[in-house]
Amino acid sequence: MHIDHIGIAVTDLESAIKRYESLLGVPCFKREIVASEQVETAFFQTGESKVELLAGTSEDSVINKYIAKRGEGMHHVAFEVVDIHAEIKRYQSMGYQMLSDAPKSGADDKLIVFLHPREAYGVLVELCQSRP
Amino acid sequence: MHIDHIGIAVTDLESAIKRYESLLGVPCFKREIVASEQVETAFFQTGESKVELLAGTSEDSVINKYIAKRGEGMHHVAFEVVDIHAEIKRYQSMGYQMLSDAPKSGADDKLIVFLHPREAYGVLVELCQSRP
Repeated sequence: MHIDHIGIAVTDLESAIKRYESLLGVPCFKREIVASEQVETAFFQTGESKVELLAGTSEDSVINKYIAKRGEGMHHVAFEVVDIHAEIKRYQSMGYQMLSDAPKSGADDKLIVFLHPREAYGVLVELCQSRP
Repeated sequence: MHIDHIGIAVTDLESAIKRYESLLGVPCFKREIVASEQVETAFFQTGESKVELLAGTSEDSVINKYIAKRGEGMHHVAFEVVDIHAEIKRYQSMGYQMLSDAPKSGADDKLIVFLHPREAYGVLVELCQSRP
């Protein structure tokens, strides 16, 4: 299991992209709106992992709610798995609480699911699988 | 530049190590006290990056202060660099505010320096270099 990406919640995606291009020294290689989640995302490659910026596209977006409560900053860490359905069952069998019983469509051609943050000492852990 | 590790602030290192061994499916491979920072750390390898748990060893520890203010959870993300002294100068020349002008000794045989979180939209970014 390796870190597929870290997710960072921001308010102004345009200015955050410029800043992270300068900070990381690499260009944003993909932008994508995930309508179902009301977010727009921007990705940067850093070694085998990516940095994902997330901005809400509506007031109801979970990202805007997160920022209202916690401020901008680290939102989640995602680990790549081979078989997300099997992993959901495996984690549930170990007693872990998932935020959903089935994976959802995420950005970057992934199926994704989240563990409840209390399962990981306050860290929102995402599991993600590349679509076949 | 790749993610060397993500740092997670926890209160009870023993129970957090057990949980992350279960969650990540790999054993903790190193524990280390960094006396100068008043923290104890525990590391897990996940691909090319590590997960670092950090617990304060005194009430004055920055980790305990962080947890008192923000709760347990993601604390920082660290990127490996080749020449940390050159990188400090390079970031400062671009106008970035560092939390110190010179690197400090960190865990895992690293020289480390932090950028001010406001430079990265609320994310505490560490630069680290393996000691020669």
